Amino acid sequence: MTAFSTAFLAVDWGTTNRRVFLIEHGIVVATERDARGVTSVAPGDFPGELAEIRERFADLPVLMAGMVGSTIGWRDAGYVAAPAGLADLAQCMTWIDPRTAIVPGVSVLTDARADVMRGEEVQFLGAVAAGLVPQDGLLCQPGTHCKWARAADGAIVDFTTAMTGELFALLRTHGLLAAQLQAAVTAGAAFRDGVAAGRGGDLAAALFGIRAAKLLGRRDDADAASYASGLLIGSDVAARLAGAPGDVHILADATLAELYSIAVTANGGTAHVVDSHAAFVAGMVALAGMLP
Amino acid sequence: MTAFSTAFLAVDWGTTNRRVFLIEHGIVVATERDARGVTSVAPGDFPGELAEIRERFADLPVLMAGMVGSTIGWRDAGYVAAPAGLADLAQCMTWIDPRTAIVPGVSVLTDARADVMRGEEVQFLGAVAAGLVPQDGLLCQPGTHCKWARAADGAIVDFTTAMTGELFALLRTHGLLAAQLQAAVTAGAAFRDGVAAGRGGDLAAALFGIRAAKLLGRRDDADAASYASGLLIGSDVAARLAGAPGDVHILADATLAELYSIAVTANGGTAHVVDSHAAFVAGMVALAGMLP
Repeated sequence: MTAFSTAFLAVDWGTTNRRVFLIEHGIVVATERDARGVTSVAPGDFPGELAEIRERFADLPVLMAGMVGSTIGWRDAGYVAAPAGLADLAQCMTWIDPRTAIVPGVSVLTDARADVMRGEEVQFLGAVAAGLVPQDGLLCQPGTHCKWARAADGAIVDFTTAMTGELFALLRTHGLLAAQLQAAVTAGAAFRDGVAAGRGGDLAAALFGIRAAKLLGRRDDADAASYASGLLIGSDVAARLAGAPGDVHILADATLAELYSIAVTANGGTAHVVDSHAAFVAGMVALAGMLP
Repeated sequence: MTAFSTAFLAVDWGTTNRRVFLIEHGIVVATERDARGVTSVAPGDFPGELAEIRERFADLPVLMAGMVGSTIGWRDAGYVAAPAGLADLAQCMTWIDPRTAIVPGVSVLTDARADVMRGEEVQFLGAVAAGLVPQDGLLCQPGTHCKWARAADGAIVDFTTAMTGELFALLRTHGLLAAQLQAAVTAGAAFRDGVAAGRGGDLAAALFGIRAAKLLGRRDDADAASYASGLLIGSDVAARLAGAPGDVHILADATLAELYSIAVTANGGTAHVVDSHAAFVAGMVALAGMLP
């Protein structure tokens, strides 16, 4: 029996949002989401923020993951080099005090590539630990920076981050196409057309095609955002499944899960959707059980 | 002998800049560049702007090309569908009055693709007409929206626009990588590394690698902008030369010409640099000779 094993607070502390889970005997008994991500907390205010959380929920041990452990968070919790499993993360915790710890990120550094994740490792490994996904397989967490992890024997052995969501946000907010991309993205024919066009891997040219299609009267602006989203997501999925389409386990909310599922299927793969909150909780419970 | 054939004013009127050439018997006798692009001219002010140009240079016939002929310019000069040669452009001029004309753009509209150019067609076809490039070949005008044209028998038969420069500007100004990309781009080892990485066609992932390389101490931020530029230009060039590397005729200023030349060579092609101002003047002189 460890200090963390009966009851603890798990905090998913990201860049813009934060979610707190009060977990007793492996079960979530209370949870709350707010907009107090690390960018809205001044450098010296993290202890005070956490004190407020303990006041609101319970005075319990706290396990934190995500950008709170980055250079813009409370303290840099470093990275564990892949291959990394839950036991590796548990061994490399950053301890603020004996009842407050931050989970490290995971890195890949080969001759050819450098990559990092921070926060997603808990969900990936939690999904594996809870049997939500197989011990060996391709896992995907879509978002601003879409993470694709290869799991083997229950560890993350390799991963790739694609700036898919960020590129879409940049194009939608600034630059030539912004005015055309204001409609909501829907999982219809325009999205599927974009996915098909994204397979070519020629993103910079395909994106200009959105402008040309408008000027030449080929596509309505109501469809342009869905097409652009399909192009970006399709390009991302095609690069990951190139040559070896198979099962993809998607940890996402319903909207992104549907879009990525369509792109996986269009590229010859088989999509399986996993509840990302359940995966996070499973990961934190497993980690808590390994702490002193 | 036509009204335009002895002496005329050629105006390259773009989005942000404008260049006026006073041309007599095919020779530029005066030229001036300013920042009065179409976005800085109010809709009703074009006649006044041109009157000032005539006052400053000479009261001559005027031939204009570029965004002045777009929906955000003086008047929409439309598009001529490829294949398009100089005679096709001359036949489809938009006449403001009998001594003031705007050159149309060129479009491609197939089942698979839509694309447009406006302004570049004069330089491409001018380069061909003046013998600066062969009658048949692959021509490239790098920039915010990089244009790649296939010339055959002296006409533009097909072309592709890539948002290469715009993507770089978006990444440098907004978003995650902006702070890392503030250094000047130089044609050194980091640029070449980026070109090599760009060959994979997996732009969204390679871009995130810039962030990871910083966090893992692999690359200095002094090199990040050059690497990112190499990645984007390399990806553009690789897509265009895929499967059939050959001669590429680059119409650009010295800086962009050097960067694109490196990427062309790295992808197995042979780069030839052409003076884009000479190409524009040649195109306008040839067009002027075809007007009534």
